[in-house]
Amino acid sequence: MATLQFWFDYASTYAYLSAMRIDDVAAKRGVSIDWRPFLLGAIFKAQGWETSPFNVYPAKGRHMVRDIERIADARGLPFQIPDADGFPRQSLLAARVGMIARREGWIADYTRAVFRAEFGPEQVDIGDRNALQSVITTAGLNASAIDAADDDTNKAELRQLTDEAMAAAIFGAPTFITPDGEMFWGDDRLEHALNWMTDGHV
Amino acid sequence: MATLQFWFDYASTYAYLSAMRIDDVAAKRGVSIDWRPFLLGAIFKAQGWETSPFNVYPAKGRHMVRDIERIADARGLPFQIPDADGFPRQSLLAARVGMIARREGWIADYTRAVFRAEFGPEQVDIGDRNALQSVITTAGLNASAIDAADDDTNKAELRQLTDEAMAAAIFGAPTFITPDGEMFWGDDRLEHALNWMTDGHV
Repeated sequence: MATLQFWFDYASTYAYLSAMRIDDVAAKRGVSIDWRPFLLGAIFKAQGWETSPFNVYPAKGRHMVRDIERIADARGLPFQIPDADGFPRQSLLAARVGMIARREGWIADYTRAVFRAEFGPEQVDIGDRNALQSVITTAGLNASAIDAADDDTNKAELRQLTDEAMAAAIFGAPTFITPDGEMFWGDDRLEHALNWMTDGHV
Repeated sequence: MATLQFWFDYASTYAYLSAMRIDDVAAKRGVSIDWRPFLLGAIFKAQGWETSPFNVYPAKGRHMVRDIERIADARGLPFQIPDADGFPRQSLLAARVGMIARREGWIADYTRAVFRAEFGPEQVDIGDRNALQSVITTAGLNASAIDAADDDTNKAELRQLTDEAMAAAIFGAPTFITPDGEMFWGDDRLEHALNWMTDGHV
């Protein structure tokens, strides 16, 4: 089964849109998903931004919120966004747990649970350790993972995946990379990536 | 007939994609198009950029080129982009002529001719007066328009439309604004804008 790389940051609103549907739409095309959490903030810093471009450029930020409201509504998904003080959330801990979930094979369920908590009506601050712990427990997943999240090996593996993202010239999330190295950026390019893999054109 | 505002800059690669199809896809939905040229560079300047964000952020620029190559290929459109020195083209004169074409009712044909010359195999520098004149003549359009382009009234009208874009918080091109004031950014949101107008959701 051909595999599509799905690169995402747990604070990314558009990655939320993709995470909630990628397994379903990919399965219909006979494609499996390699879920790859990374730290987009590190890449933004390298571009000279100290926060999300949606904060740096407020007009763009307002459009993003309205754009996702409209799309989420059409897809039957909840969507609320923290106010400027709380956006983007600190995604470091969620990503470290994501690395463990990835190794242990429960990253898809975990990631959907995190995004649903973060952008759903509960508006969970996923950067808060207790709050994230509660998300994992409620989802019936491996609650001990959060204790292992800060192990040096695990931290190093997340750094390595983020370095790999930077080396691949990833500049935003979600990003999809096909087996032949084509890069697609944005939830609105997920179908393009799948078309590319199955038909050879978008 | 309901009218969708189509805001574009003559140097914008994604606006090229929309210009080549917007009349056709809108007509199928019973929607007419109000073609609105403006100067995106003025808005970029207000955001602190001296050039296109695709030059400011090279990784994003490389993705844009590949993204449009793939889409243009699927749509049977040519697409070539000038090297960094020639991108973005100076779109001021083309936009001033666009204002005349808009008043006289030939802006759709004119705009498609300009974009085809700019991003097609001819790689015309549309910022060059003689080259633009030749594009207009070849397209069988009003070749005298270019002489009237720099009239004070015409210049002022373009400035006014650009001010209107800024007041509407437009930050990129293409941008679509529906009669009820919903803003959609990007060629990939054209269908959303039309769905919104005809179905009330994207």
